[in-house]
Amino acid sequence: MEWYLIGIIAALLTTLGFVPQIIKMHRTKSAKDVSFTTLLQFSAGAILWTLYGIHLKDTIIIVANTITFVTMVCAIAMYYHFNRK
Amino acid sequence: MEWYLIGIIAALLTTLGFVPQIIKMHRTKSAKDVSFTTLLQFSAGAILWTLYGIHLKDTIIIVANTITFVTMVCAIAMYYHFNRK
Repeated sequence: MEWYLIGIIAALLTTLGFVPQIIKMHRTKSAKDVSFTTLLQFSAGAILWTLYGIHLKDTIIIVANTITFVTMVCAIAMYYHFNRK
Repeated sequence: MEWYLIGIIAALLTTLGFVPQIIKMHRTKSAKDVSFTTLLQFSAGAILWTLYGIHLKDTIIIVANTITFVTMVCAIAMYYHFNRK
Protein backbone atom coordinates (compact mmCIF):
# COMPACT_ATOMS: atom_id res chain seq x y z
CA MET A 1 0.00 0.00 0.00
CA GLU A 2 2.78 2.50 0.83
CA TRP A 3 4.42 1.70 -2.52
CA TYR A 4 1.16 2.49 -4.26
CA LEU A 5 1.11 5.83 -2.40
CA ILE A 6 4.74 6.61 -3.39
CA GLY A 7 3.84 5.89 -7.01
CA ILE A 8 0.80 8.18 -6.78
CA ILE A 9 2.81 11.08 -5.26
CA ALA A 10 5.65 10.60 -7.80
CA ALA A 11 3.04 10.60 -10.57
CA LEU A 12 1.37 13.78 -9.25
CA LEU A 13 4.70 15.64 -8.93
CA THR A 14 5.99 14.87 -12.42
CA THR A 15 2.58 14.76 -14.11
CA LEU A 16 1.91 18.30 -12.91
CA GLY A 17 5.61 19.26 -13.18
CA PHE A 18 5.09 21.79 -15.97
CA VAL A 19 1.95 23.36 -14.44
CA PRO A 20 4.00 25.94 -12.44
CA GLN A 21 5.93 26.74 -15.66
CA ILE A 22 2.62 27.26 -17.53
CA ILE A 23 1.35 29.50 -14.70
CA LYS A 24 4.62 31.50 -14.74
CA MET A 25 4.46 32.03 -18.52
CA HIS A 26 0.83 33.14 -18.17
CA ARG A 27 1.64 35.54 -15.31
CA THR A 28 4.77 37.12 -16.80
CA LYS A 29 3.50 36.95 -20.43
CA SER A 30 7.03 35.84 -21.31
CA ALA A 31 8.67 32.56 -22.32
CA LYS A 32 11.97 33.65 -23.81
CA ASP A 33 14.18 31.80 -21.27
CA VAL A 34 12.15 28.57 -21.55
CA SER A 35 13.81 25.86 -23.68
CA PHE A 36 11.55 24.71 -26.52
CA THR A 37 13.72 21.59 -26.95
CA THR A 38 13.03 20.66 -23.31
CA LEU A 39 9.28 20.96 -23.96
CA LEU A 40 9.53 18.80 -27.11
CA GLN A 41 11.71 16.17 -25.41
CA PHE A 42 9.24 15.78 -22.52
CA SER A 43 6.32 15.50 -24.96
CA ALA A 44 8.02 12.71 -26.93
CA GLY A 45 9.21 11.10 -23.69
CA ALA A 46 5.70 11.10 -22.22
CA ILE A 47 4.36 9.27 -25.29
CA LEU A 48 7.05 6.57 -25.08
CA TRP A 49 6.72 6.17 -21.27
CA THR A 50 2.98 5.64 -21.82
CA LEU A 51 3.74 2.83 -24.30
CA TYR A 52 6.26 1.32 -21.88
CA GLY A 53 3.65 1.53 -19.08
CA ILE A 54 1.18 -0.35 -21.30
CA HIS A 55 3.87 -3.04 -21.74
CA LEU A 56 4.43 -3.22 -17.95
CA LYS A 57 0.64 -3.14 -17.42
CA ASP A 58 1.25 -0.37 -14.84
CA THR A 59 -1.76 1.96 -14.57
CA ILE A 60 0.18 4.66 -12.67
CA ILE A 61 2.81 5.01 -15.44
CA ILE A 62 0.12 5.05 -18.16
CA VAL A 63 -2.18 7.64 -16.54
CA ALA A 64 0.68 9.87 -15.30
CA ASN A 65 2.36 10.12 -18.69
CA THR A 66 -0.88 10.64 -20.60
CA ILE A 67 -1.69 13.64 -18.40
CA THR A 68 1.93 14.87 -18.70
CA PHE A 69 1.55 14.82 -22.48
CA VAL A 70 -1.60 16.99 -22.23
CA THR A 71 0.21 19.54 -20.00
CA MET A 72 3.15 19.59 -22.46
CA VAL A 73 0.78 20.44 -25.32
CA CYS A 74 -0.54 23.34 -23.18
CA ALA A 75 3.04 24.47 -22.38
CA ILE A 76 4.06 24.36 -26.07
CA ALA A 77 0.94 26.33 -27.08
CA MET A 78 1.71 28.99 -24.46
CA TYR A 79 5.40 29.09 -25.49
CA TYR A 80 4.37 29.79 -29.10
CA HIS A 81 1.77 32.35 -28.00
CA PHE A 82 4.24 34.48 -26.01
CA ASN A 83 7.27 34.04 -28.29
CA ARG A 84 5.26 35.12 -31.33
CA LYS A 85 4.69 38.55 -29.81
CA MET B 1 13.25 -6.55 -27.23
CA GLU B 2 11.40 -3.64 -28.92
CA TRP B 3 9.75 -2.84 -25.55
CA TYR B 4 13.19 -2.69 -23.98
CA LEU B 5 14.22 -0.24 -26.74
CA ILE B 6 11.10 1.92 -26.22
CA GLY B 7 11.89 2.06 -22.49
CA ILE B 8 15.49 3.07 -23.25
CA ILE B 9 14.46 5.87 -25.67
CA ALA B 10 11.75 7.10 -23.24
CA ALA B 11 14.34 7.10 -20.47
CA LEU B 12 16.89 9.01 -22.59
CA LEU B 13 14.34 11.67 -23.62
CA THR B 14 13.03 12.45 -20.11
CA THR B 15 16.32 11.74 -18.31
CA LEU B 16 18.04 14.34 -20.47
CA GLY B 17 14.89 16.49 -20.71
CA PHE B 18 16.34 19.42 -18.78
CA VAL B 19 19.73 19.36 -20.53
CA PRO B 20 18.53 21.75 -23.32
CA GLN B 21 17.13 24.05 -20.59
CA ILE B 22 20.51 23.99 -18.79
CA ILE B 23 22.31 24.76 -22.09
CA LYS B 24 19.87 27.62 -22.82
CA MET B 25 20.38 29.19 -19.36
CA HIS B 26 24.15 28.88 -19.83
CA ARG B 27 24.02 30.44 -23.32
CA THR B 28 21.66 33.34 -22.53
CA LYS B 29 22.98 33.87 -18.96
CA SER B 30 19.32 34.27 -17.98
CA ALA B 31 16.77 32.16 -16.12
CA LYS B 32 14.07 34.67 -15.19
CA ASP B 33 11.26 32.95 -17.17
CA VAL B 34 12.15 29.48 -15.83
CA SER B 35 9.82 28.21 -13.09
CA PHE B 36 11.72 27.30 -9.92
CA THR B 37 8.68 25.33 -8.69
CA THR B 38 8.84 23.17 -11.84
CA LEU B 39 12.53 22.42 -11.13
CA LEU B 40 11.73 21.51 -7.49
CA GLN B 41 8.74 19.34 -8.45
CA PHE B 42 10.80 17.33 -10.95
CA SER B 43 13.60 16.86 -8.39
CA ALA B 44 11.19 15.51 -5.76
CA GLY B 45 9.37 13.47 -8.43
CA ALA B 46 12.62 11.90 -9.66
CA ILE B 47 13.44 10.74 -6.10
CA LEU B 48 10.01 9.13 -5.66
CA TRP B 49 10.00 7.53 -9.15
CA THR B 50 13.39 5.99 -8.27
CA LEU B 51 11.86 4.46 -5.10
CA TYR B 52 8.88 3.20 -7.10
CA GLY B 53 11.28 1.70 -9.70
CA ILE B 54 13.10 -0.13 -6.88
CA HIS B 55 9.72 -1.53 -5.81
CA LEU B 56 8.93 -2.65 -9.40
CA LYS B 57 12.54 -3.97 -9.72
CA ASP B 58 12.72 -2.05 -13.03
CA THR B 59 16.29 -1.02 -13.83
CA ILE B 60 15.27 1.48 -16.54
CA ILE B 61 13.03 3.47 -14.15
CA ILE B 62 15.71 3.45 -11.42
CA VAL B 63 18.63 4.54 -13.63
CA ALA B 64 16.60 7.10 -15.62
CA ASN B 65 15.26 8.88 -12.55
CA THR B 66 18.58 8.87 -10.72
CA ILE B 67 20.22 10.64 -13.68
CA THR B 68 17.21 13.00 -13.94
CA PHE B 69 17.76 13.97 -10.30
CA VAL B 70 21.41 14.81 -11.03
CA THR B 71 20.43 17.02 -14.00
CA MET B 72 17.78 18.76 -11.82
CA VAL B 73 20.46 19.61 -9.23
CA CYS B 74 22.53 21.15 -12.08
CA ALA B 75 19.47 23.08 -13.36
CA ILE B 76 18.66 24.42 -9.86
CA ALA B 77 22.30 25.47 -9.33
CA MET B 78 22.28 27.33 -12.66
CA TYR B 79 18.89 28.94 -11.90
CA TYR B 80 20.28 30.30 -8.61
CA HIS B 81 23.49 31.43 -10.28
CA PHE B 82 21.76 33.55 -12.95
CA ASN B 83 18.87 34.82 -10.80
CA ARG B 84 21.28 36.05 -8.13
CA LYS B 85 22.86 38.49 -10.59
